[in-house]
Amino acid sequence: MLEIERYKTSLSKVFSIQKKFELQLLVEKELADANFKIGKIPKEANDVIQLKCTPEFVKLERVQEIEKEVHHDLMSLVLAISEQCGEYGGFIHLGATSYDIQDTVRGLQLKIAKDQILDALDKTIEIVKNLAEEHKELACIGRTHGIHAIPTTYGMKFGNFLNELLLAKKTLWESKVAFGKFSGAVGTYASYGTQEVEKIILEKLGLERQPITTQVITRVIHANYIYSLALIATILEHFAKEIRNLQRTEIDEVRESFVKAQVGSSTMPQKKNPEKSERICGLARIIRSKINPALDNIGLEHERDLSNSSAERVLFSETSILTHYILLQMNNVLKNLYFNLPKIKENLYLRRGAQCAEHLMIQLSNKIGRQNAHELLKKLSNEENFLEAAKVNEIVKGIFSPEEIDNILEPMNYLGLSKQIVEDLLQSIK
Amino acid sequence: MLEIERYKTSLSKVFSIQKKFELQLLVEKELADANFKIGKIPKEANDVIQLKCTPEFVKLERVQEIEKEVHHDLMSLVLAISEQCGEYGGFIHLGATSYDIQDTVRGLQLKIAKDQILDALDKTIEIVKNLAEEHKELACIGRTHGIHAIPTTYGMKFGNFLNELLLAKKTLWESKVAFGKFSGAVGTYASYGTQEVEKIILEKLGLERQPITTQVITRVIHANYIYSLALIATILEHFAKEIRNLQRTEIDEVRESFVKAQVGSSTMPQKKNPEKSERICGLARIIRSKINPALDNIGLEHERDLSNSSAERVLFSETSILTHYILLQMNNVLKNLYFNLPKIKENLYLRRGAQCAEHLMIQLSNKIGRQNAHELLKKLSNEENFLEAAKVNEIVKGIFSPEEIDNILEPMNYLGLSKQIVEDLLQSIK
Amino acid sequence: MLEIERYKTSLSKVFSIQKKFELQLLVEKELADANFKIGKIPKEANDVIQLKCTPEFVKLERVQEIEKEVHHDLMSLVLAISEQCGEYGGFIHLGATSYDIQDTVRGLQLKIAKDQILDALDKTIEIVKNLAEEHKELACIGRTHGIHAIPTTYGMKFGNFLNELLLAKKTLWESKVAFGKFSGAVGTYASYGTQEVEKIILEKLGLERQPITTQVITRVIHANYIYSLALIATILEHFAKEIRNLQRTEIDEVRESFVKAQVGSSTMPQKKNPEKSERICGLARIIRSKINPALDNIGLEHERDLSNSSAERVLFSETSILTHYILLQMNNVLKNLYFNLPKIKENLYLRRGAQCAEHLMIQLSNKIGRQNAHELLKKLSNEENFLEAAKVNEIVKGIFSPEEIDNILEPMNYLGLSKQIVEDLLQSIK
Amino acid sequence: MLEIERYKTSLSKVFSIQKKFELQLLVEKELADANFKIGKIPKEANDVIQLKCTPEFVKLERVQEIEKEVHHDLMSLVLAISEQCGEYGGFIHLGATSYDIQDTVRGLQLKIAKDQILDALDKTIEIVKNLAEEHKELACIGRTHGIHAIPTTYGMKFGNFLNELLLAKKTLWESKVAFGKFSGAVGTYASYGTQEVEKIILEKLGLERQPITTQVITRVIHANYIYSLALIATILEHFAKEIRNLQRTEIDEVRESFVKAQVGSSTMPQKKNPEKSERICGLARIIRSKINPALDNIGLEHERDLSNSSAERVLFSETSILTHYILLQMNNVLKNLYFNLPKIKENLYLRRGAQCAEHLMIQLSNKIGRQNAHELLKKLSNEENFLEAAKVNEIVKGIFSPEEIDNILEPMNYLGLSKQIVEDLLQSIK
Repeated sequence: MLEIERYKTSLSKVFSIQKKFELQLLVEKELADANFKIGKIPKEANDVIQLKCTPEFVKLERVQEIEKEVHHDLMSLVLAISEQCGEYGGFIHLGATSYDIQDTVRGLQLKIAKDQILDALDKTIEIVKNLAEEHKELACIGRTHGIHAIPTTYGMKFGNFLNELLLAKKTLWESKVAFGKFSGAVGTYASYGTQEVEKIILEKLGLERQPITTQVITRVIHANYIYSLALIATILEHFAKEIRNLQRTEIDEVRESFVKAQVGSSTMPQKKNPEKSERICGLARIIRSKINPALDNIGLEHERDLSNSSAERVLFSETSILTHYILLQMNNVLKNLYFNLPKIKENLYLRRGAQCAEHLMIQLSNKIGRQNAHELLKKLSNEENFLEAAKVNEIVKGIFSPEEIDNILEPMNYLGLSKQIVEDLLQSIK
Repeated sequence: MLEIERYKTSLSKVFSIQKKFELQLLVEKELADANFKIGKIPKEANDVIQLKCTPEFVKLERVQEIEKEVHHDLMSLVLAISEQCGEYGGFIHLGATSYDIQDTVRGLQLKIAKDQILDALDKTIEIVKNLAEEHKELACIGRTHGIHAIPTTYGMKFGNFLNELLLAKKTLWESKVAFGKFSGAVGTYASYGTQEVEKIILEKLGLERQPITTQVITRVIHANYIYSLALIATILEHFAKEIRNLQRTEIDEVRESFVKAQVGSSTMPQKKNPEKSERICGLARIIRSKINPALDNIGLEHERDLSNSSAERVLFSETSILTHYILLQMNNVLKNLYFNLPKIKENLYLRRGAQCAEHLMIQLSNKIGRQNAHELLKKLSNEENFLEAAKVNEIVKGIFSPEEIDNILEPMNYLGLSKQIVEDLLQSIK
Repeated sequence: MLEIERYKTSLSKVFSIQKKFELQLLVEKELADANFKIGKIPKEANDVIQLKCTPEFVKLERVQEIEKEVHHDLMSLVLAISEQCGEYGGFIHLGATSYDIQDTVRGLQLKIAKDQILDALDKTIEIVKNLAEEHKELACIGRTHGIHAIPTTYGMKFGNFLNELLLAKKTLWESKVAFGKFSGAVGTYASYGTQEVEKIILEKLGLERQPITTQVITRVIHANYIYSLALIATILEHFAKEIRNLQRTEIDEVRESFVKAQVGSSTMPQKKNPEKSERICGLARIIRSKINPALDNIGLEHERDLSNSSAERVLFSETSILTHYILLQMNNVLKNLYFNLPKIKENLYLRRGAQCAEHLMIQLSNKIGRQNAHELLKKLSNEENFLEAAKVNEIVKGIFSPEEIDNILEPMNYLGLSKQIVEDLLQSIK
Repeated sequence: MLEIERYKTSLSKVFSIQKKFELQLLVEKELADANFKIGKIPKEANDVIQLKCTPEFVKLERVQEIEKEVHHDLMSLVLAISEQCGEYGGFIHLGATSYDIQDTVRGLQLKIAKDQILDALDKTIEIVKNLAEEHKELACIGRTHGIHAIPTTYGMKFGNFLNELLLAKKTLWESKVAFGKFSGAVGTYASYGTQEVEKIILEKLGLERQPITTQVITRVIHANYIYSLALIATILEHFAKEIRNLQRTEIDEVRESFVKAQVGSSTMPQKKNPEKSERICGLARIIRSKINPALDNIGLEHERDLSNSSAERVLFSETSILTHYILLQMNNVLKNLYFNLPKIKENLYLRRGAQCAEHLMIQLSNKIGRQNAHELLKKLSNEENFLEAAKVNEIVKGIFSPEEIDNILEPMNYLGLSKQIVEDLLQSIK
């Protein structure tokens, strides 16, 4: 067992070798049933197949044994099923090319994966919505380039995260993956002579068809899916970095939860690290790296080549599971996030008025013009205490009283429409 | 001038330094006008600004001169405009942070880029539709793993390409880029005190707003756009590779046009290469490589950092222009594609019946079971001439007459539903 | 178990969770021994630790149990060892930070991985050398742009592959990975007060040290390693594509071995696909995609952050195992490669003299100038049979006799220095 | 002119269309000279060519004019030169395939690029060496996971950066790019009949040869070069991020220089941003993205296809120029870096003893065992003032006097071997 198995979710089972095998059996069984329904195979045969083409009778070990001989994984499955069905074994896999089974199984796996990832993402969205609502008036310093800019709120922070999550959800939502195919060796349905078989099976399995295929469904479908997961991962990384930065010792505005018995460092007893957020960032790198092979897989030659196959054995499972995993991690982080209110306030006032220099500039603009005001305040901002410097500056004090300056440079007076923006955003998605 | 400038289209101008400068002037002008409309600046000031904030009065060279001093490109622009507006210079850029201008300019550029790329893509789609219709009955050998499989048609080839193009078009279409913003330094509208300014300008410029921003619009927007271009490029590369493979000397089914004076090789007089398709493949690599920096740009710190800025100066222009360029190239290639009909036919019959072994297997399945039939025909396919081998095989000839075998192994009789699939596809997009 | 576990080699064990655990025990044991040697812990303590800090006494399950409580994998190990050592448990992990253990364990794993990959690569090189030697006179058509160019030899093909393999070997060789570290929490050795502990352990384990570290060894080391594997994979993919192209039905010059019971397609009995080469191409995509996360891991913040950790759990094992796997696959493919000599010859003569047009151009150059000759032969090459066309052309036949033309356009006479180049290359690496 | 041209260095000229044209002329001229030396062309012809095959006589505009007709850039050059050489025009390009010229020109360009990049890198290394030496005793807090860990020094920070730069330099150094080739259409030298021509030209131009080529030199060479630049960029980004983090308002330990007239924000007068470091980070993303297309270019089909050509027109110039540019930027940043000594000290003492908890743990280990000490101090570190908490703790004060505790928890006493490590490192590279 490799280390990657540390990052397990309910999806791990969906992408296990055993589960894939069971889905292959299911699809072969449905194929037989569809062939029976259109009169291609007799009732007795179908009855036996419906009974025997199950994990109870067909065993993965037997398939793997046969594969050593025939060097073809799906053909081994067909032979293993045939064995169990006796004289009716010849009705297995009728009309089908291997990828009729494989692509349909992938469709089933990815459908489950997408649903579970959407579920987890919906939870993230729900939590972030609540955090935005809850903290829409929690003022804090805004930072651009890492440098104090003007005030904003934690509601704005969560609101922006929420907006990105909603965009990602739309992208994932639109990336359809629940497809199957029974169009034969090059997509012409020549071996079936009809689209009926496909229609019956896909309806039964809750899958759709692409309007046209080669031996396989276009890999554009899958690339879109992988991209949408990479986008989710990148957005989670974006906010995980925000948490990590806000948890820095000098900033210390929020903290990941830290259970009592937890150890931050094996050598530094005092350490409390944002380790879940860091883990999210690390795994996001892996998830994001899957876009390139997913796009490479699109360019299959002619009516398809096999190069997508080995790549996809890694691609689909890893990207789905890891994305699911970091969503669950993020939900955990967010639900237990600690807000260090005194420090948030301290940071907000740290620059003693300079963080509201823009406000003063705007107020001065009417009197001395915007560019002059900018020039003047740029000079004043070199002073240690901007607020005091403003009060004693000839030009400024010629225009505003000390009380007015206090008001202008008070961060709580310069939050703009932050509250309303968050409320509008939350309203818009109800 | 760097070599990349070889790949020019009408978009090159849109992304030129000069055009960007002109758009910046336009946006600053509209900002003043909006500020005037909400009563923030007097009529006289606005009148002057509407006149002077234009390329006629403000010169790029002057901006670049100022930039050497103030090390801030947008502030240099503001100062250069101010100079021209005399006493009203102070009303320039009122309420705005640099990225209110920059992101709005990007929105304008990307809107044009997306429109022109969609236009070119629509032409590709139109051409491919016609090719699919025209060649829906042109039978050819289907190849999987590079090896002859069963017959298909050129209609199917173009149909599958068409399907991928339609998927890519949907992705591009849904990737919205026509956004602008006037929400100030951290997205709170504090400097404006209102969303009116934004509303007025964006409506005038035909742009939309995001529900919430930091100092910048979320880079998720732009990543989606870049991904959609990379997807287009990958799909074009997919088909360009198809053409290159089909033009191989031994296959020789289609050929890129080759004008009379054209030279294929400076040393081999006989060479006629699929050089446009090869160029498409090469540039697709460059385009695809832009996804990673586009995703990296999402993770801006806090209320934004500057790291997206330099990256985007390369990203947006290069990806847009090169994608546009290869679409135009592909349109040119497709419009002039030569079909070598005799060779297409020769290849179709090359494997002397073995290319229809599946057909015979299916016909035999009813009598001897699918798996037995597979086993039998696998053996027969080792013979040089499958058709003859089938005719003399005891089991086969016990079931089918020579004429029946001829019919079963005739490629033209094994095209399945290829014609109907293409017709349905074309019908569905009318 | 995920599908990736299909691709197993001897390296899979090296990167298993169990093996990593055993190496961690080993390193903790050596740490205690070194601490004993410099007098930091008493003999009795060390004796117990040397006995108990082994897989026999410390169990992975117990570590995992503790981890659920303390949320720190290495600290759980330390506690599990301590438990076993009774009163001497307090001497475990003395002076060490977790990554003193982890990075040293990684060094041990990567050292083994690199050695085994080099072994497999050396075998590839040996096989390719033999193929180059063996086929240095096997003439075949050279193809540029997929189009017949001038003749070359299979010796040249294998020689060029060999050259790339040698370059890759040099890159891998120079990418040093056998490093360990015992420099403490931020690399200052403050907790040890000496570099002696590090020196003793690394010497014992056969590892080297970096001249300076933070909490971790610079990830430049690991990025170089991952890049060198990606380079190997890309080069294998390069030649695997060559095989796939040469095995195309229409070209059919070489074939992957195909055992008797093997099945190429579950529906097309005649299919014999280059499936191993295709698998190599698919996995190369996955391997190559690992460069980006490996480079991302370099930028750890300050004296390190944790984001590399989760990424590396996937990175190191997957990239190493898959590269090893495709090397073994390639060795298998090459050892059993079938050369279809008649078809190689047929293809060589396919263009009836046009493939030697360059030769004729050069011969004509002395008489009519290079550019005129190029122009003339470009026209002639439009004829079906270039050889005959040349013989009846006024200019050509005015200069050369039919026999001379035959000789000039005979491919076997236009192999240049191909034999010598291959011999020189093989000689140079003896 | 596109926005990318903002990022100019002396290398921009090397990769200009004009310069490439001049180098092509140079190489064609040397080819003629070599052909003359081995007796292939008469003296009169060579004399004329040596005179006329120069930018003085042959004009880029003329080449571009011809290219519109013949659709082949190198052939157009040959024709344009031929025109100038009158009756001797036929001796131009004798024996050569286009890529004999192109690859040799690339070799010349890349040789210059590599040399200039190495020069800039050497300057970075020199500056960082000096900074490491200068600040080897400047203590500061070490941070892991963004959280205060134990003390370190700025010497260690620069020392670790230096180590990465030295590793990158080794990688760049070993990536050889100064190659040329004159081996003809498929690498067999058939058109030359000798390796002499190649030998003469390459010696003259200061280039080397690969032991074997196809129509082109293996793209492994170029991928290694691009990777080494990406590695440099990633390492610069690593340290640029360090500067950005250290310049955060709350941390404020170092600052990029900020000239008096400079403007940090068009709307926030007080802003002083680490904008050069941010620019380095942004461009590093672009540079790093070039690895994938560089690796894609390795897999050219058979004796080469053209897909590398268009990609390389972007790849080589952009990656070289941007890497050069950010090296120069980094040198500028480092030379003018401001150290805020009071804040460095303030941060060092911020955690009131907890930053030296490890030191106390180690001292306690002898008495109460390492794991117990860890457990005890983990509890103590929850106190606001660790130093005071330690002094009143029963166990601790039972072992150490208040003065001893002061000493143990004094950061200046817990710098380990930091000074020596830096000195050793600097010594080792003298």
